[in-house]
Amino acid sequence: MNAEILCIGSELLLGEIVNTNASFISKKLMELGINCFYQTAVGDNPERIHNVLEAALNRSDIILVTGGLGPTDDDITVKSIADYFNEELVLDKDSLNNIKNFFSAINKEMPPINEKQAYRPKGSVVIPNPIGTAPGFIREIDDKESKTKKVILTFPGVPKELYAMWEETAEKYLKKYSTGIILTRSIKYADIPEAVLAEKVKDLMKKQNPTVAPLAGTGEVRLRIAAKAKNITEANKLIDKTEKEILSRTKEYFYGYDNETLEQIVGELLIEKDLTVAIAESCTGGLVSSRLTDISGSSAYIKMNYVTYANEAKIKFLGINENIIKNYGVVSERTAINMAIGARSFSSCDIGIGITGIAGPTGGTEEKPVGLVYIGLCDKYRMEVHEVRIPGHLPRTAIKYRASQYALNYLRLFIC
Amino acid sequence: MNAEILCIGSELLLGEIVNTNASFISKKLMELGINCFYQTAVGDNPERIHNVLEAALNRSDIILVTGGLGPTDDDITVKSIADYFNEELVLDKDSLNNIKNFFSAINKEMPPINEKQAYRPKGSVVIPNPIGTAPGFIREIDDKESKTKKVILTFPGVPKELYAMWEETAEKYLKKYSTGIILTRSIKYADIPEAVLAEKVKDLMKKQNPTVAPLAGTGEVRLRIAAKAKNITEANKLIDKTEKEILSRTKEYFYGYDNETLEQIVGELLIEKDLTVAIAESCTGGLVSSRLTDISGSSAYIKMNYVTYANEAKIKFLGINENIIKNYGVVSERTAINMAIGARSFSSCDIGIGITGIAGPTGGTEEKPVGLVYIGLCDKYRMEVHEVRIPGHLPRTAIKYRASQYALNYLRLFIC
Repeated sequence: MNAEILCIGSELLLGEIVNTNASFISKKLMELGINCFYQTAVGDNPERIHNVLEAALNRSDIILVTGGLGPTDDDITVKSIADYFNEELVLDKDSLNNIKNFFSAINKEMPPINEKQAYRPKGSVVIPNPIGTAPGFIREIDDKESKTKKVILTFPGVPKELYAMWEETAEKYLKKYSTGIILTRSIKYADIPEAVLAEKVKDLMKKQNPTVAPLAGTGEVRLRIAAKAKNITEANKLIDKTEKEILSRTKEYFYGYDNETLEQIVGELLIEKDLTVAIAESCTGGLVSSRLTDISGSSAYIKMNYVTYANEAKIKFLGINENIIKNYGVVSERTAINMAIGARSFSSCDIGIGITGIAGPTGGTEEKPVGLVYIGLCDKYRMEVHEVRIPGHLPRTAIKYRASQYALNYLRLFIC
Repeated sequence: MNAEILCIGSELLLGEIVNTNASFISKKLMELGINCFYQTAVGDNPERIHNVLEAALNRSDIILVTGGLGPTDDDITVKSIADYFNEELVLDKDSLNNIKNFFSAINKEMPPINEKQAYRPKGSVVIPNPIGTAPGFIREIDDKESKTKKVILTFPGVPKELYAMWEETAEKYLKKYSTGIILTRSIKYADIPEAVLAEKVKDLMKKQNPTVAPLAGTGEVRLRIAAKAKNITEANKLIDKTEKEILSRTKEYFYGYDNETLEQIVGELLIEKDLTVAIAESCTGGLVSSRLTDISGSSAYIKMNYVTYANEAKIKFLGINENIIKNYGVVSERTAINMAIGARSFSSCDIGIGITGIAGPTGGTEEKPVGLVYIGLCDKYRMEVHEVRIPGHLPRTAIKYRASQYALNYLRLFIC
C-alpha cells in the first residue's frame, strides 16, 4: 500500500504559506514504513480537486488530504470528495456536539456557519479534532472488480490540529498498512565538498538497503543512510554496518549526527575537557560568539569575546602591535594568530581564537580577494593558523556563516 | 499561459526538508500575474518523474522544475527531461567553464563528476547559476499539431541558488507570459503584536483591491498590500494610497519596507547622523553585533563590541562595579545601563548599548523569569533603559533573536 499527499488550499498556490503539512506527513509515513511517492498541492477549486484526486487514486492506495475543512464557502474538500464518489453528506452528531462544546468553552454560541463542519460523506468514519472545530474522516473504498482497497483520510490545514489528529487517531489506524519501518541517520561533515565526499562512497550510493545519499548544506555536507527493516533493531544494525564503512573512509571530516550542530559538538567537547575559550572576531562580527552561545550552558566555557572590527580596537583591546597590521595587513596570518593570543591572555581563558578576513562585497584586492579568511588558534602550548578561501561571489552573510563554520570546525579539531 | 511547479527530490518525500522552493516560486508567479494551479513533489525516480511531467504538460503551459541538478548519480532531472522528449544531452562549454571557475576560485580542481552538471538537453538554453555549480535550462516546446507552446525551466534545489537564478534570468524571461501584474509592498513593524496591528486596519483588510493582510514574523509583523493592475504605475498608485492611510494610523511602530531589516535601517541612520556605536552583550551572545555587521559598510559605525558573558568580564572589561551586580543582580536595569556606559566609554564610541537577560531554558526564577531582558542605551547626553518580557517557553535561539530585535529597534528610536 503506497501513500500520497494532497494539500488543498489556495494560500499554498499563492506562496503565502510554506507547506509544512506535506513534510510532516511524509516524515510520519516514513517512520511507519509506508512509502509516499507523491505530494500535490492544489487550490480550492472543485474541478482541480477532482483531477488530482483521480490521479492519486490511480497510482496510490492511501490518500492523505489536508486543508479545506473550514466553515467558510471556499472550504470545499469534504463536498468535493463526496461528489467524486457520488455520495451524500450526513450530519455527524458527535462532531456537532464537539463543535458546540468548543465554542461554549470560550463562552460563545456556535456561529451557524460552523454546522457545516459536522458533515461527513456517508460511509466514512470521523477523525475527531481534539483542539479545533474541523474533524476529518476516514473513507475506505473496496473496489470489488480489481480487488483493491483504497483509503482516504482528511485533516484540516492548521498544522497543530493535523498533528493532534495524527497522533490520536490516524497513526493508530495506519499502522495496519505498515510493512516495516524506515530508519534514517545523517552523518555530518565540515570542510569537504559534496562531490569529493560522494566520490569516496560512490559504491555505497548504488546499494538499495540501506541507501546512502549526499545532501549539501551551507558550509557542511551530510550523508543520509536510510534502512528498511521489520523493526528498529534490525534497521539500526543495517545502518551501523554502513556507517562503520563510511566512517572508515571519511572519519577526518566527520563531526556529528542528524540535527547536531558544530556549536553543540564544540560545546560538549569544551565541557568534557573543562576548557574555556575566548574569541576575537573581525569579519564574522560576533557570529561565532553568537552561535556558541546558542547552546544552553555555554556560560561554562564562554567568558569574554571580542568583536574588534576597527584596527584601533585590535591594537587597543587585543594588544596587537601596530607594525604587524602595517607590515602584514589586517587580513593576514600574523594578525589572526595575534588576535587569538590577545583574546586568550586578556580574558585568561584556556584557548584563544582570532578571525580576520574580507566578508565583502567590497574591500577585496587581487592579492587578498573577498572571501579570504585567516583563523588563528592557540592554547598554552600550541598555536596554529589556517587560511580559508570562501567563494567571493557569495553574499556577505553566507561568507560570514561559512567562515564561522570553518572557525568552529578548526576549534573542534584543536580540542579533540 | 498557466504555470505549475514540479519539485524533485527524495528528501521532500521523506519529510527531511520543507518545500520552501514551491512557495517561493508560487509567490513570484503571483507577482508576475501568472496563474499557478498545481505544485507536485516527487522523488528521484525516472518513472515517477516521467509521470508527473506528462500530467503537468497536459494541464499547464509553463513547468517550473526544481531539484535533482547535482553532480551525483541520484540527480537525474536533466536526463529524465531529455529522455521524455527523446533528446540527447549536449555539453555546454560556458557552463563547464563556470563550474571550473567555481572550483578554481577556492583553489581546488573540479572533481570529474561535476562535469555532468554542464550538460543540457539539445535545443535548450542555459540559466546560469551565479553562486553554485548547477546551471538550469529553459526548453521551449512548440507543438505544431495543437498549435500550443509549452515551456520548461529547471532550477537546482538549493534555495539560495534558485533565488539568484530566478532574479538574474528566469524572472526576465517569464515576464513575456505575464497578463497583468500583481504588485505587493510590505510595511514592517517592530514592537507591536499582530492582533493589535490588525485591529487598527480592520476595515482595510476587507477591501478587494488592494488587499491588506497581516503576517507575523519573529519579533516583527508586516502588513502586505497587494494590488492588481495593468501596469506597475497603476499598481503603485493603488498601493501608495492605501499605505498612506495605513501609516496615518500606525506610524509609530513602522520601521521599513519589504526586505529591509532593522540592522539595515539602523545602519543607514548611523551613517546619516555620522555616529558610532559600541555594544556590550550578555544574553544575546554577539547576535546584535553579528546582525549589525551583516551590513556592508558597517565598519563605518562598528569599532569594538563586547560579549561579556561572565560577571567577571562585565567587571573587568566594562568597569561595572561589583556591588551593582551583587545588589541588583546581573539581569537588572542597573547592570544594563552600566554595560552601555562602559561599552561607550572604553570604545570611545558615540553610543553605548548594554543587553543583559535570561535566554533560558534554565536560569529563570519567579521574580526574574526566562525571557526577561534589560536593554540600556546612552550617548553623551542621555541614558535610557528598557525592560522587555519575551515569552519564556520559546526556544533559546528565538529568545535571543527577539531580544536582538528589541535592541535594534530601541537603537533605531534612540538615534531617530
